[in-house]
Amino acid sequence: MANSPNCDLKSLNPLQLFEKVTEQGEKVRALKAGKAPKDEIDTAVKMLLSLKLSYKTATGQDYQAGLPPKDLVLINNGTAKEEEEDFVDPWNVQTSNAKGVDYDKLIVRFGSTKIDTDLINRIERAIGQKPHHFLRRGIFFSHRDMDQILDAYENKKSFYLYTGRGPSSQALHVGHLIPFIFTKWLQEVFDVPLVIQLTDDEKYLWKDLTTEKANEYAKENAKDIIACGFDINKTFIFSDLEYLGSSRGFYRNIVKVQKHVTFNQVKGIFGFTDSDCIGKISFPAIQAAPSFSSSFPQIFNGKENIQCLIPCAIDQDPYFRMTRDVAPRIGQPKPALLHSVFFPALQGAQTKMSASDPNSTIFLTDTPKQIKTKINKHAFSGGRDTIEEHRKYGGNCDVDVSFMYLTFFLEDDDRLAQLKQAYTSGELLTGELKKVLIETLQPLIAAHQERRKQITDEMVKEFMTPRKLAFDF
Amino acid sequence: MANSPNCDLKSLNPLQLFEKVTEQGEKVRALKAGKAPKDEIDTAVKMLLSLKLSYKTATGQDYQAGLPPKDLVLINNGTAKEEEEDFVDPWNVQTSNAKGVDYDKLIVRFGSTKIDTDLINRIERAIGQKPHHFLRRGIFFSHRDMDQILDAYENKKSFYLYTGRGPSSQALHVGHLIPFIFTKWLQEVFDVPLVIQLTDDEKYLWKDLTTEKANEYAKENAKDIIACGFDINKTFIFSDLEYLGSSRGFYRNIVKVQKHVTFNQVKGIFGFTDSDCIGKISFPAIQAAPSFSSSFPQIFNGKENIQCLIPCAIDQDPYFRMTRDVAPRIGQPKPALLHSVFFPALQGAQTKMSASDPNSTIFLTDTPKQIKTKINKHAFSGGRDTIEEHRKYGGNCDVDVSFMYLTFFLEDDDRLAQLKQAYTSGELLTGELKKVLIETLQPLIAAHQERRKQITDEMVKEFMTPRKLAFDF
Repeated sequence: MANSPNCDLKSLNPLQLFEKVTEQGEKVRALKAGKAPKDEIDTAVKMLLSLKLSYKTATGQDYQAGLPPKDLVLINNGTAKEEEEDFVDPWNVQTSNAKGVDYDKLIVRFGSTKIDTDLINRIERAIGQKPHHFLRRGIFFSHRDMDQILDAYENKKSFYLYTGRGPSSQALHVGHLIPFIFTKWLQEVFDVPLVIQLTDDEKYLWKDLTTEKANEYAKENAKDIIACGFDINKTFIFSDLEYLGSSRGFYRNIVKVQKHVTFNQVKGIFGFTDSDCIGKISFPAIQAAPSFSSSFPQIFNGKENIQCLIPCAIDQDPYFRMTRDVAPRIGQPKPALLHSVFFPALQGAQTKMSASDPNSTIFLTDTPKQIKTKINKHAFSGGRDTIEEHRKYGGNCDVDVSFMYLTFFLEDDDRLAQLKQAYTSGELLTGELKKVLIETLQPLIAAHQERRKQITDEMVKEFMTPRKLAFDF
Repeated sequence: MANSPNCDLKSLNPLQLFEKVTEQGEKVRALKAGKAPKDEIDTAVKMLLSLKLSYKTATGQDYQAGLPPKDLVLINNGTAKEEEEDFVDPWNVQTSNAKGVDYDKLIVRFGSTKIDTDLINRIERAIGQKPHHFLRRGIFFSHRDMDQILDAYENKKSFYLYTGRGPSSQALHVGHLIPFIFTKWLQEVFDVPLVIQLTDDEKYLWKDLTTEKANEYAKENAKDIIACGFDINKTFIFSDLEYLGSSRGFYRNIVKVQKHVTFNQVKGIFGFTDSDCIGKISFPAIQAAPSFSSSFPQIFNGKENIQCLIPCAIDQDPYFRMTRDVAPRIGQPKPALLHSVFFPALQGAQTKMSASDPNSTIFLTDTPKQIKTKINKHAFSGGRDTIEEHRKYGGNCDVDVSFMYLTFFLEDDDRLAQLKQAYTSGELLTGELKKVLIETLQPLIAAHQERRKQITDEMVKEFMTPRKLAFDF
């Protein structure tokens, strides 16, 4: 059929189909409004119906004007389910399950790949040492293209690390450390450059902050990040509000991404609406651009093809799904990803720890006493109601927040296994488990505070100055 | 009525009302979907109807979901007419009238102010010399707040000029010179700093160009602009792709504008759709930001309150209506404007001269012979069909493109009046009028080419280097 719209529709993704239907709908309306000949209108209507059918076949949903397909990856994988119990996007995480988000389901929904034993073993062989306990314990549990990173690494081809933080407040909490602790380990074992983005522009756009305040938070947060022990010769930390105004490479990549992403797409991926400001709508390109080495000509000598690896919490994945979709269209390699679970709130794993709720949160500025009080008072316990019951039936580590935190911060595998066994059997009481956590966290946080005190404004400035790092490209 | 939504609606503009209706509609849908109690739904529906009524009262239009009020200024002025014959936006100009766009109507539609004899006389008094023939002949015909600029000037308070160009091709045409010729005159008589924006990022986003090509065009176009005779000590020319990456002040203002403009607004002002890329959607902020002196800390010593005056063709006004709307909300003064008419195509004033149609266009690179041929062959004539008729009834200067061009380029008022009289009376033939135009344009363009040849890449670089100018702030 020469006139059928179906001939080239097979190659279109749901969003492109959505846009075709919308376009055709507008055409029909225009023809009707312009009182076009009846047969012309009929042909256009027929094509519209046929396009709607193609859309339904591809997405399993009826076309609805103004409502683009909800989650591109979701639909592309043919696993569209309207009612997911867990809610995960870059701004909110919510589940009704005390064990936390169902990460296996999330992997299917997001279309990423589980980090399995094979991959962990391969990493061990590549780096010649035991992988970080975040990997061994499934805290970093999902990835995209990590095998390609290892292929390249084994062939002596370098890559670089990119992670970041949205500086919405002065003080970081312990959960914020997770990506940085892991990134520091990755940087050490692979010996690669690292860029850390502080999205002060994002926080200005989303929050009730001035640009000055957001930028001030960025510099304060940089101190906590530097205190994790990053090597100044291998690490570049940047604030968007500053670096965008000092790098031509960065803005060029931003505008390239912005040319290749439509409002329909960010609507589908991030849920933006017509009432959102144009700053929010275009922001995803700013988080995307550091995935391309040409955003850092001073580090990579202008080279455009250096592969990027992004360690981040899985709620940031939507940004990088978008980035990976755009990358080949602007002639850049897709960034690879390593995804972590969320760090649970003190009250339970139904939501992640958030700086905006002090009771749910252990800050890096907390005193030993505050740490003790918060854990004793708020940390959700998987123990039984009475000592007698606990001794008899044992506690539940799957929902116990203190135990969860220990999987993050207690490095000793044997000790952790012992604790699990003792708590599950009822031998160890809730108060005793909390004591172990308190005694683990207090020195960790005190040491962090000690290191942070040494970080001067001068050092922050140096870390944040665009410059060549200790690598040749 | 305590519960009426009308109490604070008076202060809302049509777009805000539109957003209120949309919000309330969503609320009603959510209540219905959540099977809320009937009385709660009824109250919400009542409020929705009342909001729709307020919207209709304010705009004269029924609320339509997804269709924000078309042109804010249009509606704010209470002059909404659906069927305007002339079409004017930053990308297209079209009218069915051979005399060109009805500029008096456009002033009403855009809500600007006509430049009248009083204002021209006041300018003459302020600068102590005869105003430019572009002002005297109504080529710059409309303004916003020019009286405030003069108030300030008379009180020895300085201001600065901002104009620009979208570098979509190598060669400029004669029409492109109009804002630059006038801006140069303004700079000389008022002795103020000037910034010239080359929107190479815009052209990358809108056209099938690489960033490199767009940037190359920017630098080529800069040569033509410099050849107009701008003073390097008083003028800063910048490409967005370059300057955005070298000025923190510029990006901060961009992100501030982006926070205060919604997609609904740019949809209403520029006609963007959901299928447009996020780069186009956020671009208006980039054209807005140079209206604020803090975008140029190197020129204005970081001062935020220097008033800006923008000479431009009136099709650029939508950008600056938006800018003026945002300015007070980010604590900045509103830019003032001087609007010019469009430069007509050779074929007639129904559309403006466009570089994409070589036959409608005299390029600054054309040879004397090409100029002669194009004018003789294509310039629409207001003369009669035969010499006899022409002698008897005379020609029509109102639609004659050669005569229109002479109003732009023939500085001698008496000569122009003579030509008009002679052509209208039939004494002067079309060929003779064209000859005058050819003899006016050939030396002008040859001189431009001569000056342009002297402009080296080094000079362009110097003009485009962020630096202090010959003014103290």
